Amino acid sequence: MAEFSAHTVKSFDEDIAQLRAVITRMGGLCESQISDAVDALVNRNVEAAAVIVENDKRLDALEAEAEALAVRIIALRAPMADDLREIVAALKIAGVMERIGDYAKNIAKRASVVAQAQPIAPAVIIPEMARAVVGIIRDTLDAFVDRDAAKASAILQRDQQVDEFYNSLFRSLLTFMMENPHYITPSTHLLFVAKNLERIGDHATSVAEMVYFTATGQRPAERPKNDFTSTIYAPQ
Amino acid sequence: MAEFSAHTVKSFDEDIAQLRAVITRMGGLCESQISDAVDALVNRNVEAAAVIVENDKRLDALEAEAEALAVRIIALRAPMADDLREIVAALKIAGVMERIGDYAKNIAKRASVVAQAQPIAPAVIIPEMARAVVGIIRDTLDAFVDRDAAKASAILQRDQQVDEFYNSLFRSLLTFMMENPHYITPSTHLLFVAKNLERIGDHATSVAEMVYFTATGQRPAERPKNDFTSTIYAPQ
Repeated sequence: MAEFSAHTVKSFDEDIAQLRAVITRMGGLCESQISDAVDALVNRNVEAAAVIVENDKRLDALEAEAEALAVRIIALRAPMADDLREIVAALKIAGVMERIGDYAKNIAKRASVVAQAQPIAPAVIIPEMARAVVGIIRDTLDAFVDRDAAKASAILQRDQQVDEFYNSLFRSLLTFMMENPHYITPSTHLLFVAKNLERIGDHATSVAEMVYFTATGQRPAERPKNDFTSTIYAPQ
Repeated sequence: MAEFSAHTVKSFDEDIAQLRAVITRMGGLCESQISDAVDALVNRNVEAAAVIVENDKRLDALEAEAEALAVRIIALRAPMADDLREIVAALKIAGVMERIGDYAKNIAKRASVVAQAQPIAPAVIIPEMARAVVGIIRDTLDAFVDRDAAKASAILQRDQQVDEFYNSLFRSLLTFMMENPHYITPSTHLLFVAKNLERIGDHATSVAEMVYFTATGQRPAERPKNDFTSTIYAPQ
């Protein structure tokens, strides 16, 4: 009972802070899941990869927690439009973080196949690409915590670097496959890993857009995309 | 003014019906985008593919409309927990439909590269796979419109067929790439097309799970997944 009355006198701001804390935890977990998945892939550590796949359930549980919290806050507080928009944005961000977790899990799942194959030179770009997307997530979460539109806006261009990594990796992997059929299986899986990282970069940047929108009420200008891989035809 | 007072006397049920109608439109548009994208790919119709890419903006606009409607309904009606959960579910479904649209757009974008290459035999599975996922979306929307838990539950197993198509296509395309380097580029793009269809099937099935949950308050049992492609190593 004491707990219940303590709960009911909590302010709306405290409720929102609790919801935002769940999202910050999701973001931190996404960062470690991506770094760990790429480490497991590069170091051919199949056991570590299995742990990452298992850990993804924590992100699913945190998303469900964010949703339950949001519904409770809305039902208890009947917030006005601006506060509601913030809650809806928080829900969407939680959904994006859960998806980012799925992409990290998919990278980890490919570690065992890649571990069976010969190392491929272009694979060295993957940890760099992972660092770039983890940096975007970290800075996006900082902008989210500080409700800082300028910080969010500064992030929006960085997804282009990720797309450039992806384009370059896509071309090199196709070339490797052409040269030697033994490279086809590992290259195919690395193509999907690169695609997963490209998707993570895109989703993290969409969170920066939401942070910007929530802070300013304005949509940022449409950001340029640099992913041209859907039209790449390898030289033969 | 007349419009405003007409609006304010509308019932909560009418508001929800309007939100659900937006989602039904999104679902219908997803079905046609997927079918049209696969037709453009198979028929090497690059002009049709460009129209599909352009049409995706309508799905983005409908998602924004669903979000604005949901925020307005919550702000005006201060709905109780059950109704709120239905609105939150509708928001999530709109988000999933927007993502499904993105996958269809990505399929369309690959049409021009695939059109430059020699036809590949395993590509004949792609229209079959597309029909399977479009069927899942159509039946999921029927279950959503009728709030029919039994119908939603019947859909949950069907994603396994889609995963089986994907496994089979993944293996055949790897084999084709091994046999002839000329097949590497088109096969790679068809692998991504197949992956997009697999993701669409998975997302559409997650909507069926949400429909089931909204209708019954119970989460369905965890569905078995049949996508083993992340561990496939091609024979050499």
